[in-house]
Amino acid sequence: MIKSKDALKIILNNSKPLGTEAIALTAALGRVLAENIYSDVNIPPFNRSAMDGFAINFKDKSKIFTVIEDIPAGKVPEKTISSGKCARIMTGAMLPQGADKVVMVENTKQISHNKMQIVKAEKKSNVSLQGEDVKKGELILKKGTKIRAQEAAMLASVGKPTVKVLRQPKVAIISTGSELAEPSQTPKPGQIRNSNSSMLLVQLKRLGIEGIYLGIAKDNFTATKQLVSKGLAQADILILSGGVSVGDYDFVREVLEACGVKILFNKVAIKPGKPTVFGKYGDKTVFGLPGNPVSVLIIFDLFVVPAIDKIVGRITKSKLTSLRLLKNFQRRNANREQYFPIQITKSGARPLKFHGSAHMQALTQADGIMHIAKGIKNLKKGTLVNVRPI
Amino acid sequence: MIKSKDALKIILNNSKPLGTEAIALTAALGRVLAENIYSDVNIPPFNRSAMDGFAINFKDKSKIFTVIEDIPAGKVPEKTISSGKCARIMTGAMLPQGADKVVMVENTKQISHNKMQIVKAEKKSNVSLQGEDVKKGELILKKGTKIRAQEAAMLASVGKPTVKVLRQPKVAIISTGSELAEPSQTPKPGQIRNSNSSMLLVQLKRLGIEGIYLGIAKDNFTATKQLVSKGLAQADILILSGGVSVGDYDFVREVLEACGVKILFNKVAIKPGKPTVFGKYGDKTVFGLPGNPVSVLIIFDLFVVPAIDKIVGRITKSKLTSLRLLKNFQRRNANREQYFPIQITKSGARPLKFHGSAHMQALTQADGIMHIAKGIKNLKKGTLVNVRPI
Repeated sequence: MIKSKDALKIILNNSKPLGTEAIALTAALGRVLAENIYSDVNIPPFNRSAMDGFAINFKDKSKIFTVIEDIPAGKVPEKTISSGKCARIMTGAMLPQGADKVVMVENTKQISHNKMQIVKAEKKSNVSLQGEDVKKGELILKKGTKIRAQEAAMLASVGKPTVKVLRQPKVAIISTGSELAEPSQTPKPGQIRNSNSSMLLVQLKRLGIEGIYLGIAKDNFTATKQLVSKGLAQADILILSGGVSVGDYDFVREVLEACGVKILFNKVAIKPGKPTVFGKYGDKTVFGLPGNPVSVLIIFDLFVVPAIDKIVGRITKSKLTSLRLLKNFQRRNANREQYFPIQITKSGARPLKFHGSAHMQALTQADGIMHIAKGIKNLKKGTLVNVRPI
Repeated sequence: MIKSKDALKIILNNSKPLGTEAIALTAALGRVLAENIYSDVNIPPFNRSAMDGFAINFKDKSKIFTVIEDIPAGKVPEKTISSGKCARIMTGAMLPQGADKVVMVENTKQISHNKMQIVKAEKKSNVSLQGEDVKKGELILKKGTKIRAQEAAMLASVGKPTVKVLRQPKVAIISTGSELAEPSQTPKPGQIRNSNSSMLLVQLKRLGIEGIYLGIAKDNFTATKQLVSKGLAQADILILSGGVSVGDYDFVREVLEACGVKILFNKVAIKPGKPTVFGKYGDKTVFGLPGNPVSVLIIFDLFVVPAIDKIVGRITKSKLTSLRLLKNFQRRNANREQYFPIQITKSGARPLKFHGSAHMQALTQADGIMHIAKGIKNLKKGTLVNVRPI
């Protein structure tokens, strides 16, 4: 039985980028650039008016100007501005030759069809200079940058309707257990519905991944081996739930070994989640999660999310916050570190009524899980505890 | 010119749920239940073994037991347990008649083919009682609950492979401006690439919405009116960017009015984002955002996100955090409240070098935007400022 931090180390050592793919920019939220991005344009591309108004020369001290041209955004000016001359110009439009200042329309008065008078002097030029934000050829986004809305805008600006990003893993899901019925079925006596697969698909979706659901493997070697082989063939990461503890009918580990998976650990000193199995199959990895849904929820968050983040190049930010415990907490057995569901309130963390790792209903009331270190049996009200949002 | 909090009030008053839709549970992340969910089963559905071991009667003081049945998970036991008798039982399996305790396999010894001896006494029953987590008929998730992974698990458990949720709005996007080229095109002289549409599609994606992109409207009345009419016909929310300031060539407002849109405000005392227009068209709403991308980024976050959250029933959580300013900040004009891009470090908020609302490259360095109230020109290093992550 290894510590959870050692388990995570093994998982991360065996989770590596899977190469790159080109995807539509508009589908790239949360993905990580696999190339440096250089600008093919100056931004602004030309000296640009930042206001609606009249383009003049800064040094021109005239009070009355003749309007010689209209310049809407997108038009290339045809005339050159000289003393006493101006062009009517719109926000975003290109400044004409000879002009280096825009007088805001609010500070002018039209005195005849083509005559304008300045009624209030301005010190600002109201011009954005060519290349002042980005120079042509400049490195604007480094390889490894995660794409948010602002990066998407920059990528569009420099002509990248498709972007090269680290490839997402294909993730296949199998639920094991002869006692399982699908959510659409009415359970027969002795059966319960399979909730782990739907939950895992939703957890993957949060990471932007459409999981591949392979179905329920009944508790027999051949059926389970068949599904596992299919998963190993189709996916980069195979996630099983159930069938990983010590009983006669729990043989996921044996099936994995029979399929050529090398088991790297098969027990972790953590509660819930002790019977978690992790193995590798070439460059692929296999997570054998416990059968109880709360264990699956938490172990996915602790172990699978960092693995996927590493594969796609994202930096997993620590989500821990420190909160004050709102009532005394005790546990019978302190031989493993533990995560326990809590509610987050303004004043701190309130432990929930929780029957154990099958009790998912308690988690629907939870905002987080608090960490209890190995060896700690009692936590007094007021103690600062580490909480992960969930 | 109205205050931003009044603008938001008007927006929220005109943003209402659009009815419900049934969607696949596995696609329901972040969606909000439009029905109360009652359980059609007890959870656990029967008295269930929490361990692999041997089912006996709690009162039976025998040391040696005869194994009369094997009960894997999913099987309905056939025999009744009486004194000196036990059944081999697996985690998750149904307890047989007469049994109310499971002795863990680790605490027993097999002494012959069908004889088991208890080697270590246990006080715990290792049994989860029928209905101890959820009773059949119980309300488990209330209308209005946002679906996370744990709610998905519960919905699967009670037989909801599809769920009734508040409908998402259809959102159409138009960029206006004759100076715009698409990201796939090389801009001609006087042109810049359209970055707002890609950015808005990514911002919508973050809310789980696939936006409908209608293209670029050139700066002429007929072309713009045609696209706006199309947007109003197809979508619940129409978002335009550009064409909303005061110049001769900026006529988005006139086009909207010609299409029958009732303008509810057309200027907000906020920087960036002053020329933001908001209107309604029956139950539909229209946002006319400024043309500059930084304004679009920020105004979408301040105004469009809360509108969509309200429509789909989500509670918008305040994302403000209070951070210490790491250097002096000053601005020339304090007549509007302002948001300014900053970097978040361990010690606080560092204002970025920022040329104004066209300077998106600065935002790729930003983790947040800090709020500066109207009337405040100078903020001293060390001041606590309100920051929104971005």
